[in-house]
Formats: sequence, structure tokens, C-alpha cells
Amino acid sequence: MASALRALAMDAVEEANSGHPGMPLGFADVATVLYADVLKFDPSAPDWADRDRLVLSAGHGSMLLYGLLHLTGYPGWNLEVLRRFRQLGSPAAGHPEFGHGAGIETTTGPLGQGLATAVGMAMAEAMDRARFGADLVDHRTWVIAGDGCLMEGIAQEAISLAGHLRLSRLIVLFDDNGITIDGKTSLATSEDQAARFRAAGWRVLAADGHDPVAIKAALDEAVTDTDRPTMVAFRTQIGRGAGDKAGTAKSHGSPLGCSHIAAARAAMDWPHAPFVIPAEITDAWAATSRRGKLAHMEWATRLQKRPPAEQQAFTDHVARRLPDFTQALDAAASEFLASGKPLATRAASGKVLEHLIPLVPALIGGSADLTGSVNTRVPGHEVIAADAFGGRFVHWGIREHGMAAAMNGMALHGGYVPYSGTFLVFAGYMLGAMRLSALMGQKVVYVLTHDSIGLGEDGPTHQPVESLAQLRAMPGLTVLRPGDPVEVAEAWGVALAQPGPVALVLSRQAVPVLRKELSAHATARGAYVLSEAKGGPRQVTLIGTGTELALAVEAQAILAAEGIRAAVVSMPSMELFAAQDEAWQDAVLGPCALPRVAVEAALRFGWDSVLGRSGRFVGMTGFGASGPAEALYDHFGITAAQVAEAARAALAKGARA
Amino acid sequence: MASALRALAMDAVEEANSGHPGMPLGFADVATVLYADVLKFDPSAPDWADRDRLVLSAGHGSMLLYGLLHLTGYPGWNLEVLRRFRQLGSPAAGHPEFGHGAGIETTTGPLGQGLATAVGMAMAEAMDRARFGADLVDHRTWVIAGDGCLMEGIAQEAISLAGHLRLSRLIVLFDDNGITIDGKTSLATSEDQAARFRAAGWRVLAADGHDPVAIKAALDEAVTDTDRPTMVAFRTQIGRGAGDKAGTAKSHGSPLGCSHIAAARAAMDWPHAPFVIPAEITDAWAATSRRGKLAHMEWATRLQKRPPAEQQAFTDHVARRLPDFTQALDAAASEFLASGKPLATRAASGKVLEHLIPLVPALIGGSADLTGSVNTRVPGHEVIAADAFGGRFVHWGIREHGMAAAMNGMALHGGYVPYSGTFLVFAGYMLGAMRLSALMGQKVVYVLTHDSIGLGEDGPTHQPVESLAQLRAMPGLTVLRPGDPVEVAEAWGVALAQPGPVALVLSRQAVPVLRKELSAHATARGAYVLSEAKGGPRQVTLIGTGTELALAVEAQAILAAEGIRAAVVSMPSMELFAAQDEAWQDAVLGPCALPRVAVEAALRFGWDSVLGRSGRFVGMTGFGASGPAEALYDHFGITAAQVAEAARAALAKGARA
Repeated sequence: MASALRALAMDAVEEANSGHPGMPLGFADVATVLYADVLKFDPSAPDWADRDRLVLSAGHGSMLLYGLLHLTGYPGWNLEVLRRFRQLGSPAAGHPEFGHGAGIETTTGPLGQGLATAVGMAMAEAMDRARFGADLVDHRTWVIAGDGCLMEGIAQEAISLAGHLRLSRLIVLFDDNGITIDGKTSLATSEDQAARFRAAGWRVLAADGHDPVAIKAALDEAVTDTDRPTMVAFRTQIGRGAGDKAGTAKSHGSPLGCSHIAAARAAMDWPHAPFVIPAEITDAWAATSRRGKLAHMEWATRLQKRPPAEQQAFTDHVARRLPDFTQALDAAASEFLASGKPLATRAASGKVLEHLIPLVPALIGGSADLTGSVNTRVPGHEVIAADAFGGRFVHWGIREHGMAAAMNGMALHGGYVPYSGTFLVFAGYMLGAMRLSALMGQKVVYVLTHDSIGLGEDGPTHQPVESLAQLRAMPGLTVLRPGDPVEVAEAWGVALAQPGPVALVLSRQAVPVLRKELSAHATARGAYVLSEAKGGPRQVTLIGTGTELALAVEAQAILAAEGIRAAVVSMPSMELFAAQDEAWQDAVLGPCALPRVAVEAALRFGWDSVLGRSGRFVGMTGFGASGPAEALYDHFGITAAQVAEAARAALAKGARA
Repeated sequence: MASALRALAMDAVEEANSGHPGMPLGFADVATVLYADVLKFDPSAPDWADRDRLVLSAGHGSMLLYGLLHLTGYPGWNLEVLRRFRQLGSPAAGHPEFGHGAGIETTTGPLGQGLATAVGMAMAEAMDRARFGADLVDHRTWVIAGDGCLMEGIAQEAISLAGHLRLSRLIVLFDDNGITIDGKTSLATSEDQAARFRAAGWRVLAADGHDPVAIKAALDEAVTDTDRPTMVAFRTQIGRGAGDKAGTAKSHGSPLGCSHIAAARAAMDWPHAPFVIPAEITDAWAATSRRGKLAHMEWATRLQKRPPAEQQAFTDHVARRLPDFTQALDAAASEFLASGKPLATRAASGKVLEHLIPLVPALIGGSADLTGSVNTRVPGHEVIAADAFGGRFVHWGIREHGMAAAMNGMALHGGYVPYSGTFLVFAGYMLGAMRLSALMGQKVVYVLTHDSIGLGEDGPTHQPVESLAQLRAMPGLTVLRPGDPVEVAEAWGVALAQPGPVALVLSRQAVPVLRKELSAHATARGAYVLSEAKGGPRQVTLIGTGTELALAVEAQAILAAEGIRAAVVSMPSMELFAAQDEAWQDAVLGPCALPRVAVEAALRFGWDSVLGRSGRFVGMTGFGASGPAEALYDHFGITAAQVAEAARAALAKGARA
């Protein structure tokens, strides 16, 4: 049976003339025993809530996974698909891509992401079990990881967190082949992996990855009860069977070539033509799903025995059907309007969450050791811990990258909408995982506070100036930088309504309440006229975001006193605005001929799409500095007076022209 | 003496009404013994090549460092500077900022960076020792790291690499206080740090961080001969002495307040007013530098005894005086022109390096386990290993973030110009460290290959579409995407001439040789006219970068056949072009009224600064896909035909207007 996996991997890579045969050849024996005897899966129901999750963290070995999905009978994985490995439009993409085909639990390829994502899945499983009971929630999360995954820093964050949370149903299968792209792992690492995992609180097992009996024994032990996550180090040979390429980096990332494939076929006594698998082998593989199908039926019976309300609650949870949350946003906005007091947008976000958390059980909060600063924890918010998975708040530790990937895992697992906070500048620590949120379209909310020089004294290392542009540049991510407390409530509404990931960019310092009411035609449309010019047609458009929106409002008043009619546009989200129809865009920004001035305590990069080259921008031109926020705003010339001056200059130039 | 450090930290934070007193209070005892008895430093020569490097990885404890620099007599660190802690323009910034004051070895604050940077410094020390001998190169690299640093993934990459390379002169002092911002570390981690470091090949020591005798013994042991890096875990109490805030997160990140400061003063029997230090204490601190000054003199004598040529070589090395490298670029360009064969720009870069490496000994290459793909290693390029620091190529392993930080450390140490490669998309794994390259203006060359959908089958996880914009958005970083082999040679010239960091963005796939000669007025000016319109004045400007430059050239020919006069502009660097005078910019881009069309296999984000809102862009609009490169270019409509069509449409619209 393992030979079938190997043959498919060799043949598909050869057919594509591109791909990674080494890993599938090396890990086929372990994968075969795993599917045949241990993994709980039902190919006829790829989305069954209580299936084991299998994450191929070593995503370059995608043909191993595709071979398994084909042989075990997942829908859509016919031989034709495998023949079109790595061709445009094929679900059998170069690396496993979530959503491209049944049975792909997550997108992998960027190393370490799969392992860290799996930690989030295992957390979600434990959380589900605490909520719905072990009779309905009894699955494991399996990870296949190679040396590359383990060398990435994100892996350590994941390993450390998993050990701390005692994720006893997380099992990492380490493809310990001693080879990476450059050659032997001894070129770059001397780490004792077993000792490293033990230091983080893991159970560590080891076995010969080519001996089916030893593999079976190790996997059986891996599923015995424990209070720790388990790592099984399987000693394997990369490119197993591929002649003199076996055991070397030469088998890793390119087609083996005819002669080596012939040698491999001979070595494993596999006389069949490419993509041909004898019936007895296909039958044997088809039979592997019987265990899972039976388990699925028994599970369905158990679910049926639950009272209807409980069944419904479970089904709603799995489908992540959110209750109507508008009343929570209304309530928060009412408080902001009634108080009228200036509030940091991070604080406003905390207030909105106080209303949302009780209403939306799917919301799981967290922070990367900045809980008091990012306002993501509300009063009474129970913490998730090794002995308390009923909680709803995660202390992720100072592990931004691992946090972001685990949030992806929670979202992928189903049931939860994770949100978590750190400082905006540290988006640069977790961009790899945020990219996967965007690529997979996962509903994850990044709460990114201390969003400019307005954070003050901590200085340029902590002051983002380029981060907004970097996030706006990412396709599939919606970036929101609300300008007053009411916009914060609306931004949360957008975040919960969006199918994909959202970055909520929030301030350390206070902003005044500028809005009069909650509106479906404001933040959700990306930009809107906050305050139209008075006393005649608009002469100039002032555009502000976040904490600088108030500066635009002040500038409007300065200009009005001089008889200049300026409108103030709030633009909390460039992406949402760009998605509106032209009529809305034109109505908001005014005719092209009218000068535009934008103010944002960040770089201009990306703003020309709104301003054109001739528009004026009041903002940063480089890194920030350490000092009190007010002093920095003055120093860098981000003031209402400068906005007004830019407007005057733009009008004067227009008049000359 | 430690009390003086504590008092200064408390007083400065109180005066600033902002800052982190807990760490300095907790680590003052260790720091005092370190400076008094162990560290090799000479405040009168802060840049002495053989000084020990001290990296405060826990950068929020900046007042500990500033207090030490003041008390030991570093130039510029008078009491007035400390009184202006965290004020605009003060060298005593919120976090230590390299270049703001003498004795700050690197910018820290973003956690984990200091530790990983220190690994690069320790590597550079070992490399210097192998080159110039232990009589001239005999310093250590010290790191003060807290739990926050150790939890970040980048720390593991650094720890693992340091153990592998057996950096025996790297010593990490772990401020083991069991507290992070959110509270006890047990909220988020259960790791056995000693076991973790041992697993990576470190020597681990431990001591009471408040017992001067124990501290002295531990530090003395830490400098005994070993073949491993050393970690000393000092058990400390955060906020030591600060009444009921001691030992809690409350002392971490905000002023202690009058009553707690009074309690601390009483507890350490320190009756002096704020910022007042009695003469006997200032004298004792001043005396700590005697050891270092003597060592410095002895070292200078040893240097003097070397033959003049060796002295000169050492001095040139330390000052990083590069030889004239233009001949290497000429030689490479000549080969490209003579051959005339299409070449991937990554391959062209490898060819340029073949000429540069023998000529410029300061260049240190490397790759994150993609050596054959990023073309950073040349024939005969000796590898750096634990027993071979004379080498010039680093197998960084699959540790992008640690690699980038360590490259910063090498550059900061002096003597070397590190360059290293990974895929462009993995810039998202190391942006935190790239940001510090830019903020510190360090000469580090990032070789970022496989720069678009042109990498083909590996698919969207490996295809950058937003990365170019994200890097262009970063201030202080020069991004170069050369469009033909000759431009690659010029780009290396820019990289070596630039004082700050450079990202060389290179292709997997081949490009034709489009240029006729090497020129000082091409790549170095950011953009230039590669091919002017013929047969009359220019009607439209086609702008290309990288692999798409050839598409612009093809489109020019298509248009010419129709009688449309298009010029082709190559724009390898937006930042360099933006820095040119208006005359050059206008000459290159043509009058504003002429339509502009840009082609780049990436997102439009950021291009409007060149194109204006009305310009046309042929590129990507979202993530890529898995398939052969040619199929992807067709699928996403990035072709010469589309460029020509965009030009026609632009001209037609102009004609209508």
C-alpha cells in the first residue's frame, strides 16, 4: 500500500516535471499505517466535525497528501487530478491549498505554519470538548513536520504554547530524515529535538519510520492517555527507494528522472505503469476508511440522542452561526454618544467587546502579553488554561507569529471567531501567518493598537509608520483604522460580518467623539463624508483616518473662519472604499478637479491611489522618535494647522493653474 | 553601587512619567558585578574594536543601560541627558537606539532581536579572531535577556544557531524574574529554559541574581573556557525594593510613584535626592573602567607590534574600507553582454558574486537553506562552521528571522558586509529584523529571489504579490528589482555603495539581456529610459521592472508596428528614482500629460505615486496560483499584448478627452 503512495508521488512529479518527491517517498510507510490503523477519517464526509485533523506542515510533500486523498476516496481526487499536479486550476496545487479540494485542512508550505496552525486546531478541539462533551468531541490533531518546520522560530512558539496548555490530543509526527535542501541538517543544526520537546513539556517517542510494526506500536502509544502533547520522531530516509538519490537532498525538490524512478519501482517490486494501481491495492486503501465511517455513524447516533436544543446548539456552533450582534454595537455606540468623552480607540474597542462577548459565544479573545494595553479582555472574561478550556481568553505569551497561526487554526477547526491583540508594529513579527489568514480567507480579527507616533515615548522601534501600508498591500485582508469611538463599534460590525480576516488598527491616545450615530453607510463603505462644506459648494476635501480624523475636523474649522469651504471625509478603510461603486466614491471625494488633502500619522505610500500625484499629504516621511505624543505630532508637523496650510497651498496652486 | 543604578532608573522614569523601572531594579545587582569585575570596556573609546559587546535585549530596561553608561563615564551621558529620559531629542530614548549615544551597541526593544543580533556579533568576533588572531581579537558578546526575549520564535532560531556554531564567547544573562506584562510567566509558559538551552548545545549556569558573591562566581565561570555558548539564569525579583510592587508586573512598565520610590530608597538605605549620587559611589563606578582602559592599552601595544601592513589590514577591516569593486561589476557585465544569453536575474547575481567575492573580503554570504536557488554561494566559497570561522558563507538554516537579525549583528560588529538569500515571499518571516536594519541604517544586503508568479508551480504560498510594496513602504530600505543581467551588476554596485540596507529582488526565470553597457546613470538613479520612442516625439511611456521589463520592450515593438511611439523606462528602484531631481524624473517619465503604463507581476499598490490615478497598470490584483510560469502570466494577463492594449486604451482615452 505504501508503494502506491510512492508511485503516485514519483509519477505525478515526473508528469508535472516539478515538485518534491523525497518527502512522500520517505514518509509513505508512516502515512500508510496512520491511515490504515489510527487516523479517524471519513472521506464521504470530509467536513465531519469530529474527524481527526491532519496537517501536512511539510507542505512541499503535497503529493503524499494528494495520494492519500485519492487512495482513500475523498471526493474530487481522481487520477486525472493527480495527473494535473501543479497545473493551473488543479486542486493538486504545488502546496496544499485550503479550499482547493476536500480533505485539505489548511494551506501549508511556508515552513512551521502548519505546526503552529495545528496548535490552534487542538485548542479548538479542547474548547469544544469542554463545551459539548467528549461523546461529541473526541478527535485528535496530527501534524507531519520536517526539520524545516522545526527550525523556524514559529515552531518553537507553537511547541512551547502546546506544552504549556497540555494539548494532549496534539501529535506531531517528525519526519526525521536528517536532510534539508542544502544537504545534511548537520550543516545548520545540532539540536537535540527530543530534549527540546521535553523541555517544553511534551511526551517524546521514537521509531523506525520504515518498519510497519514499529510504526504501529509508536502510533498506538501516541494515542494512549497522557496530559501532554506527543512528538514521535520517525527516523526515515528521504527519497526512500530512489536509487543513489535516496537519503540525499537530490531527492528533495525535483523530479527523480526515468532511471531513478525505474530503480525505485524495481526496489519496491512495483511493475505497474505510471498512475496504474492494481485493484487489490486500491481495495485495501478503500478499506482504510471503514473504521472512520463506522465511528462517524456511532457519533451521529450519539448526537441524535442529545436533546434537540443541544443538537441545534452544537450544529450552530460548528457552522459558526453568529447571533444578531447589532444590539451590542448599538449599545456601545449609545454609551459613547451619551458620554461624549474622548476615548482611545483601543479603549472604545474594549467597551464594544464588553457588549459583544456576552452576546457572541464564538468570540475568543487573546493578547500577546499586552492584555491591559490592547483592551482585548473584558471583565469576567475567563482565561483558557490547561485545566480550563471552557474559558474564552488566551494568554498567548510573547509569541505573535505563533498566535496568528493558531488563530488561523481555531478558525479552520470551526466554531470560533478568534481575535487577539498586539501592537501594530509587531505585525512585522507575524506577517507570515497573517498572509495565510488572507490567502485562506479565514475569519480572524487582528487587534493592532498603538498605531502611530501617538504611542509616544517608547520610540521608533514601537512606532509603526509603514505598517498600515504593508497591511493595506495584502490582498484579502481588510484594514480598518476607525477615527472615533462610534467608528470603532462599526468596525467591529464589519469585522464580524466579513468572511475574511480583518486588522483593526487602534490608537493608544484618546480621540473625541465625532459622529452622531451608528450607520450602515459609514465605516462599512470604507469612507464617507463626516462633515460637508458649509455655506456653498465644497472647495477642498480633507481626508483623515484614525486619530488624525480630528485634525481634519479642526482644520475644517480653521479654513471656514477664512471663508474656505472644506469637507471632511473619514476613511477608515481604503479597501472597503475601493470596493464601492464610482457614484459613492465620487460623492465622497468630490470631483477630481477639487484638491484633496489627506492626514494620517504614517507614510504616504499607498495614498496616491486616493490623492493622485497632485494631492497633498500630511504625515510621516520616515521613522518616528521617542518623546511625548503631543511633542512628536508637533515635531513631525502633523497638526490641524498643517492640514489647513496644505489645503490653502493646494487651492492657491489650483488658482494659479 | 547597584543602588545608584536603581535610584537613577526610578528617578528618570518618574521624571519622564513614563518607562520601565522593574527590569533595572531587578537586574542592577548583576549589572554592577558585570561592569565592576568582568566586562571589558573603555568608556573613553566606545568604538574600540576589541571591546566586549553588551546587548540589552530586554530593551525596555533602557534606564539600566543609560545608568551604566552615565556612571562608567561614556561621553555624552551626563545627568542632564538622564533627566531628559524619553524626551524628544534625548539620546536616552525610550528604548536603546543605535547611533543616538556612545555605548549603545544595537537598537533593541522588539523582543528577541537583541539576542539574535548578538549571535551575529559573536559570529563576527569569531571570524575576526580566525583572520587576525586572538591577540587582537579577544572579546565577548554579552546579552541581557528576559522571558519576553526567550518566548519569541526568533530567539529559538538564534539559540539553535549559536549552539550549532559553538559560539563559545557568547554569554546570555537571563533575567529570570518569572514576570511579564500580563503577570506571572506561568500564565503563558511552562518551559524548562535550562533544558531548552542544553538541548541546543549550550552550557547552562544558574545563580541568585541578588547575591553579589554568587553573581561573581557565576560570571567567573561563564568566562572559563568552553566549546559552547553559555546561558546564566539569574533568579531575580522584578522591581526589587519597590515595596509591594516588587516581584509583580506592576513594577514593569510604569512609574513607581512617590510612595514606592520612598520605600525603595529606604529599603536600600539611599537617602539622596533624585539624580544625586554621592562622590564615593561615583568614584567607585568611575574606577570600574580601569581594567578596560588597561586592557585597551595593552591591546594597542600588541597592535603596534604587528608589521605595518598587518596593522593597516586590521584597521581597514574594522573600518570596513571596501576596495574598488567596479572592475568586478565591469567584468560581470562584459560576460553578460558577450554571451547575450537570457539569464535569470538570480543567476546573474550569482555571476556578479563570482567576481565580487574574491575582490571584496568583507562580503559574507549565506542563505536560509536555499543556497542552490538563491545563487549566493560561489565556487570555492568556504563555509563558516564551528571549527572554520575563516570561511565566508553561512548556512543559516531555515531561520529567516534569526538570519536577518544576525546579519544586523555582523554589520554592527564591524568588518563585514553580510548578504544572504531567501525567497522574496519569506520577507514576511523576517520583517521585524529588516525593520531594524533600516532603522539603524546597517549595510546588509537581502537577496530575495523567486520574486513573482514567475516561480510557477510552487503556487500562491510562495508567490509574492504584495511583498514588493511592503518592502518599498519601509523607510531606509532601498529596494532594487533589476530587469536584466547588466542591471543586476549595477544593482550590486548600488548595494555596496549604499550606507544602509538593500533588498535585491531577483527572478527565478530567465530574462533577455536588454542593456548595451554598464552605466552610472541607470540603476543608481532608480529609473532611466531604456529605449526612447523612435520616429517622432514620445506618445506613451511604458514602465517595467524586473522580469516584466522585457514585456515593455516587446510591447514597444508591437506599438511601433502600429505607428504608436512608445518609450520604455526601466525602473529598478522607486526609492532611488524618487530621490532624483525633478529634471531627471521629468526626462525619464516624459511630460505629465503623456499616458503612462507600468507592468510588474505584483500588485498596483504604491505605483500610483509614479502613474498617478489615471495611469494604467498591468499586473496582479490578488494572490497567484500553482502552475507553470508561462501559463500563469497568460492567465493573469501579464503579457506584452496586454501592455500594448493598455497603451492603446490610454491613448484613446487621451484623444477623447
